[in-house]
Amino acid sequence: MKNIQSKDNLVVRQAMKVAAGRDKTRILLEGVHLCEEWLKRYDPPESVLVQASAVDRPEIARLLAITDTARQYLLADALFNAIATVQTPQGIMFVATRPVPAAISRLSTTALWLDRLQDPGNLGTILRTAAAAGVKDILLSAGCVGAWSPKVLRSAQGAHFALDIYEHQHFPDIRDRLDMPILASSLVPGARSLYEDALPAACLWVVGNEGQGVHPDILTVADQCIFIPQSDAVESLNAAVATAILLFEQRRQHMRG
Amino acid sequence: MKNIQSKDNLVVRQAMKVAAGRDKTRILLEGVHLCEEWLKRYDPPESVLVQASAVDRPEIARLLAITDTARQYLLADALFNAIATVQTPQGIMFVATRPVPAAISRLSTTALWLDRLQDPGNLGTILRTAAAAGVKDILLSAGCVGAWSPKVLRSAQGAHFALDIYEHQHFPDIRDRLDMPILASSLVPGARSLYEDALPAACLWVVGNEGQGVHPDILTVADQCIFIPQSDAVESLNAAVATAILLFEQRRQHMRG
Repeated sequence: MKNIQSKDNLVVRQAMKVAAGRDKTRILLEGVHLCEEWLKRYDPPESVLVQASAVDRPEIARLLAITDTARQYLLADALFNAIATVQTPQGIMFVATRPVPAAISRLSTTALWLDRLQDPGNLGTILRTAAAAGVKDILLSAGCVGAWSPKVLRSAQGAHFALDIYEHQHFPDIRDRLDMPILASSLVPGARSLYEDALPAACLWVVGNEGQGVHPDILTVADQCIFIPQSDAVESLNAAVATAILLFEQRRQHMRG
Repeated sequence: MKNIQSKDNLVVRQAMKVAAGRDKTRILLEGVHLCEEWLKRYDPPESVLVQASAVDRPEIARLLAITDTARQYLLADALFNAIATVQTPQGIMFVATRPVPAAISRLSTTALWLDRLQDPGNLGTILRTAAAAGVKDILLSAGCVGAWSPKVLRSAQGAHFALDIYEHQHFPDIRDRLDMPILASSLVPGARSLYEDALPAACLWVVGNEGQGVHPDILTVADQCIFIPQSDAVESLNAAVATAILLFEQRRQHMRG
């Protein structure tokens, strides 16, 4: 393990660039849980950064034992904290290559289209929820918040690595590849209650921007608009909560594995 | 409307104390939406703080038109921003008296017990979700994050004002007042799938700490432990998402108004 003292070190500068979102091919994984989840599915990361004061913790030592010593860097606490995007860093970070999913040919199992979603915490929670619901393909419109920022990664708790995430997508391109109906979450007139009809076993769910909802162009081509019947005590549901209720109602009806 | 320039002004000092969580009898409502929601249900606030550069915006002017001029304070932008807990303040804040719900005698309609919930964003989303699901009584254990901080208020988007929120509760006291079963969200052995049995029309739902789940003492006395069947692609669901799936499945079965 190399000892790094200077913030001019190349590995440190690269990690800072990734943390700031200025490196589109790499991701920063902060904390033991995310690093463990990465190693379950992918090759070892490009670099393993360890906080000097945390090196002897058992959960950190365990991760060091299963990664390549030549890629491990011991950082003085101040240096480690300068890279970290959390106030209380957990002692370890990976810098890894951002996974790129295979190109989409056809879509025939339930997938999720996110239309201009803005909040990183919402996006992370939605990814975690979709993975838990057994959904694999996540399609993000242009105008969505970036899916691989440290905040989204933290909030999704490793769900990224169980999903195929397609950013900057164009809706008509995806529509041409669908072997299933489009169901949009919306309160527009004519929308049906989620509990009114049987849901298809597979569909493209569309969830919209936190404030404005789904874009009218998509509503126009959706096979069905669906609303979640709620009390009028509040105006609406959080986007991640609405997604969860939709996906798990479909899961209840069809019980994906 | 009074013009305030100094941070030594009493109203400013009070607002700062509320923003910092050091005033247990008052709350800070930031932004047009929260202020509007407050006025739908309660008397005008103690003070209305307006950001100088925002005073002419139509949505701010509308709020000023329906509150008492004697309680309105125009603050220089820097002063307003020093109080605000958000990076991009929305031009208006209310300082209001924290609502205190009536003492609980008996509980016979669906209520929610939150056991040592830690994350303010989660709590806010849970309150918003509970209100949308038609649940009114929210009971927080000792050790829960405070329910009335600016962050929880923002995340709940006005749901606080549609709920009766009881903090620092003692589980045995509440249990003595229940005319309905206790259903705890948990993965313990013996837990039943959410979709396995009919849910009662009314129950006390128990949702636990983000990391540790529901306290064993509560699991022991719960009438049923319930889990949400999910894919094993991720370890667990976010606490707010889990709460949403539970409450809306019950709502689907019994359709509360």
